Parts: sequence; structure tokens; C-alpha cells
Amino acid sequence: MYLAARWFPGHLTVIDRDECLELLNRTEVGRVAFSDSEGPLVLPVNHVMVGERIVFRTAPRTAIADHIGTGPVSYQVDEFDSYTSAGWSVLVRGTAEFVDGVWLTAHDLEPEPWADGRRSLHVSITPTEITGRRVVPT
Amino acid sequence: MYLAARWFPGHLTVIDRDECLELLNRTEVGRVAFSDSEGPLVLPVNHVMVGERIVFRTAPRTAIADHIGTGPVSYQVDEFDSYTSAGWSVLVRGTAEFVDGVWLTAHDLEPEPWADGRRSLHVSITPTEITGRRVVPT
Repeated sequence: MYLAARWFPGHLTVIDRDECLELLNRTEVGRVAFSDSEGPLVLPVNHVMVGERIVFRTAPRTAIADHIGTGPVSYQVDEFDSYTSAGWSVLVRGTAEFVDGVWLTAHDLEPEPWADGRRSLHVSITPTEITGRRVVPT
Repeated sequence: MYLAARWFPGHLTVIDRDECLELLNRTEVGRVAFSDSEGPLVLPVNHVMVGERIVFRTAPRTAIADHIGTGPVSYQVDEFDSYTSAGWSVLVRGTAEFVDGVWLTAHDLEPEPWADGRRSLHVSITPTEITGRRVVPT
């Protein structure tokens, strides 16, 4: 940890769990990764945080809907800047399940997908591990 | 395809294969997804395109290096704009293998990781499927 905390251009530093959660809270788009029969795939969604849980919406009969609950998932958010060759990435590993959207709506926590279409299913990811890394600007 | 091509705010349209490749070419950072014993994970890397292959560098004894070649992978690039609630995402599914970096260097195709440290391994992903989607600006 001592070495990882050095602050110089291009150096990769560890982001602690609390800051990872902050970054998840202030990010609107993330990527859910899950596996189908042909391997892992990655799809962007709009999320909200409910405590430490990540909640997003999807539609029935999508790749995501068909594979949630069949195995572990990841959720990833990041931000990069080409000009300074810097950025950060947070990776959440956990399990996903469908949840009742009514409670979310009542608490004004409804995730609002940018994409149109009926997205009636709410998916919640409960983290088992949250890690993050940052590349310091040059 | 006719319906998918409609152009109105929030609508999800399909990006064809050629444009997906263009977007991959003009992007510097992408995310490789692969599985370890605990499921899928997603890590950002800096890539270059060599024809239709995605090439990036990593270091020995990293999570990526340990799991390349053990199963299928995905590679994902995207760009989003919170102001217009719009963006696009391209997903490549394929297989990954280690390649000789000398040829790349000779052809000035060397991927340059933003993160420091020795990243002596070159990984090449050969696509089996390339798909993309765009959310039209509001």
C-alpha cells in the first residue's frame, strides 16, 4: 500500500472502498458483465445506488434479463481523459437478482434509462467485492 | 431494421459492423471482460487495432494475463454524454491469445498503456462477433 500510494504521472494507485462507492454514486452509466453460453459480455446501463447496491432497469427477454440470477456478475464504472492520459475505474463483483421496483419509485430512487422502450424489470447487484484503480495524470 | 433506424430522442439504434470498427479505431481505452473462477470481470486497457484485431499490453501475473487463452473474452468501448443522455457502445466477442510484440513495434502499432510498469505481454483479440448500439441525443 505504501508503494501504491505514490503520486506521479502514469502511476497506478488503489482507490479505497469508500471512494469507490462515492464514484459509483456520482456516475450515471456503468457496465454490467455477465456470462451466457458463449462467454462473458458487457452492456452499458443507467444505474442508481441504493446503499451499496447497484440498481438498474431492463426489459424482459433481453440478454441481461435472461442471464441475471444464473451466475455471478460484475459492474464497472470508469472515467478517462485522453488529454492527460489519466482516469479511474471501479469494479464491483457480486450477485444480481430481480427486485420490486415499487419501493424504489416510492423513495424516488428510480433508475431512468436513457434508452426508450419498456424496461419493467429492476435488477439489483449486491457487491461481494469492490475495488478501484486510478492512473494519475501526466 | 426499419424500425431500429428511426431517429428520435432516446431511441436505441443498431450500429453496423463497419462503423463499429471505425469507433474501435478512434477509441484509445476499452474494457476487456473475461472470467476467472469467481465469474466475469471487466478491466480497462489501452488498445490499438491491427486490422480487425484488438491488441493491448499487460504484465505477467496479472488477472488478465492469467486468464487469457482459458476461455472466450469480450472487448467493449463506449462514449456517453450526460448532458444529452446519449451515447454509443460497441461489443466485440472473441478469443484472446498472446502475440509477439516485435512485429507490432516494427509497424508502429505498439499500444501505449497510460499506466506505468513493465507490460511486456501483448494480447490480441480476434473477433467472432462485433455489435453496436447507439442512444440518440434528446
